[in-house]
Amino acid sequence: VKLADLDTPAALLDEARMQRAIARMQSHVSALGARLRPHVKTSKCIQVAQRQREAGAAGITVSTLKEAEAFFGAGFDDILYAVGMAPQRMPQALALRRRGCALTLVVDSAAAAMAVIGGARAAGGAVPPVLIEIDVDRHRAGVAPESAELLDIGRLLHEAGALAGVMTHCGASYECRGEAELVAMAEQERALTVRAAERLRAAGLPCPTVSVGSTPTALFARRLDGVTEVRAGVYVFYDLVMAGLGVCRADDIVLAVLATVIGHQRDKGWVLVDAGWMALSRDRGTAAQPLDQGYGLVCDERGALLEGWIVNQANQEHGIVEHRSGRAPLDVAERFPIGTRLRVLPNHACATAAQHERYAVLDGDTVRAVWPRFSGW
Amino acid sequence: VKLADLDTPAALLDEARMQRAIARMQSHVSALGARLRPHVKTSKCIQVAQRQREAGAAGITVSTLKEAEAFFGAGFDDILYAVGMAPQRMPQALALRRRGCALTLVVDSAAAAMAVIGGARAAGGAVPPVLIEIDVDRHRAGVAPESAELLDIGRLLHEAGALAGVMTHCGASYECRGEAELVAMAEQERALTVRAAERLRAAGLPCPTVSVGSTPTALFARRLDGVTEVRAGVYVFYDLVMAGLGVCRADDIVLAVLATVIGHQRDKGWVLVDAGWMALSRDRGTAAQPLDQGYGLVCDERGALLEGWIVNQANQEHGIVEHRSGRAPLDVAERFPIGTRLRVLPNHACATAAQHERYAVLDGDTVRAVWPRFSGW
Repeated sequence: VKLADLDTPAALLDEARMQRAIARMQSHVSALGARLRPHVKTSKCIQVAQRQREAGAAGITVSTLKEAEAFFGAGFDDILYAVGMAPQRMPQALALRRRGCALTLVVDSAAAAMAVIGGARAAGGAVPPVLIEIDVDRHRAGVAPESAELLDIGRLLHEAGALAGVMTHCGASYECRGEAELVAMAEQERALTVRAAERLRAAGLPCPTVSVGSTPTALFARRLDGVTEVRAGVYVFYDLVMAGLGVCRADDIVLAVLATVIGHQRDKGWVLVDAGWMALSRDRGTAAQPLDQGYGLVCDERGALLEGWIVNQANQEHGIVEHRSGRAPLDVAERFPIGTRLRVLPNHACATAAQHERYAVLDGDTVRAVWPRFSGW
Repeated sequence: VKLADLDTPAALLDEARMQRAIARMQSHVSALGARLRPHVKTSKCIQVAQRQREAGAAGITVSTLKEAEAFFGAGFDDILYAVGMAPQRMPQALALRRRGCALTLVVDSAAAAMAVIGGARAAGGAVPPVLIEIDVDRHRAGVAPESAELLDIGRLLHEAGALAGVMTHCGASYECRGEAELVAMAEQERALTVRAAERLRAAGLPCPTVSVGSTPTALFARRLDGVTEVRAGVYVFYDLVMAGLGVCRADDIVLAVLATVIGHQRDKGWVLVDAGWMALSRDRGTAAQPLDQGYGLVCDERGALLEGWIVNQANQEHGIVEHRSGRAPLDVAERFPIGTRLRVLPNHACATAAQHERYAVLDGDTVRAVWPRFSGW
């Protein structure tokens, strides 16, 4: 199958770029002495995770137990479920453990730790290993590294034989500006997570795993002393938010949405395409960055950037492509006739990929394979 | 199955509210003398469309040919594909016609009309009926009602035996403020579309169908003289954008996302839930309205509104629930313990529903049925 034969909209993966992205992260994390545990929520695709494993990844991270089940079924048996554990999900988690999956859970409160311990005991099983989530950036979840609750949770889990260590996700890294801020944020993430581990150890509690991560902090980390593993997700595809942060260039981006021109509003310089928010997602992550990329940056069908053209508005199945300047340089109906095919680079690869059921894997203009992705809960 | 047995996140439909929403739109449009052709892109669910048909709907509107195929397979044979036709899709459209589907297409340029005519003739088939899209609000697609191109397109289609009429979608209605603006916008939509039809007829071209629509203009239309059919989609579920426009009340909203509390940041008054943007969508449609509802308005598990609580931030599988005031009225960990279940009313039902593979249909706290929805292209 050729690129020209694909129906639109379609999610495209540039496999050569993906292999470079995987190799870059793996070699960076390995060189700093840590293991890499990729977050597969970005791709939700077995074939992508297999390539990460072939490059040296140790285990995977998931955002849902459905991901855990799908990847375990495909031979991935070392899985961190990195969302705070809801008590109702204990039977599902314990079933995975019984089937041989080395599933690790996460909590960030004594209440959640007690729910996990109580849930496992009520089911008559061992308590699964648990990481304590640490809040290093006041961004989302986690206990403060200096809190008394950290030690309370540690004691509860240790007494249950379930304390596996600490983990954090430094989501604030997405709001950094420039290399110096990213390097400092990576060091903040490392230092505060290691500090939490040291407090547990000083209290006589074991803390074998020290897990940190986000794509920006992983790639801008200068050292990982005391860290045992790094988790990162979006690096496998990159996106415009990552490009805006300086993590990659636009032409490193692996994922694109193929679209077809279906109309014009010539007086306004608009090109209407058949990729709306259903295909691109509603994510507007670059709106908070210095360069707002609308709903995505436009390339020609072969992937060459069309300088200044973005998807500026999106309805369900309509995208409106405009020149960033607001002035089209010539008649858009002549430049982009009906039927013209374009690629759109996404703001946020995790969100855009989630709108699609499969990836068309490209080698040049050949569709080398079609890889399914799964969704739902 | 009981509501309490559902895994989270899950998409819930309140069937009684849905039946009221369907009856309201049907009786309003019927009373004004037009047919109702619901847009099924909102639900992408056969069972929902069947209820719209039972209430009196005449045909359906779709946003993709995949929807057309799925609904035709389920016995819906009068289908308007309401997105400008891409030439590459002609074989798929013609195949549906050959199978007996009364599929109507849309174009808004002479170039697209010629592509449709050429595509049908190249395939050796009759040209399918085509509506000319009219631009009544400078919002998206369509030719101007007073343009010369309208008559050019009309002649091309008429000579090919394919001119079925005119249609518009008044997307600008989503930006109206207050009843007077909505009534005026509905009249603008009606008047300009009827004017386009009259220009075609004055030029000796037939224009049997005059199709208008959007949920706000449909419900605020005071008259539909000259209009033969109304299309509307989101009315079947409503959402917070519609409530913000005054189209419905929050407690009319049919669709909600069930979520579980997984943690807290007590000092900030944050309640973390397991419904992030993957379950809620990234749609922030109320951000442009006077009352910004964040990623959704929070109700208790039974659906009673919790005054002032919204999902204020969202990551992939995490939502952060906060009180709108920024001050939680009491300890959030006591008010919403881990494991508490909440419902979230969505900004934009079409976008939120698209994140789910099925609907749990509720009668009180009983899950009466599970209806699948489809996705993709």
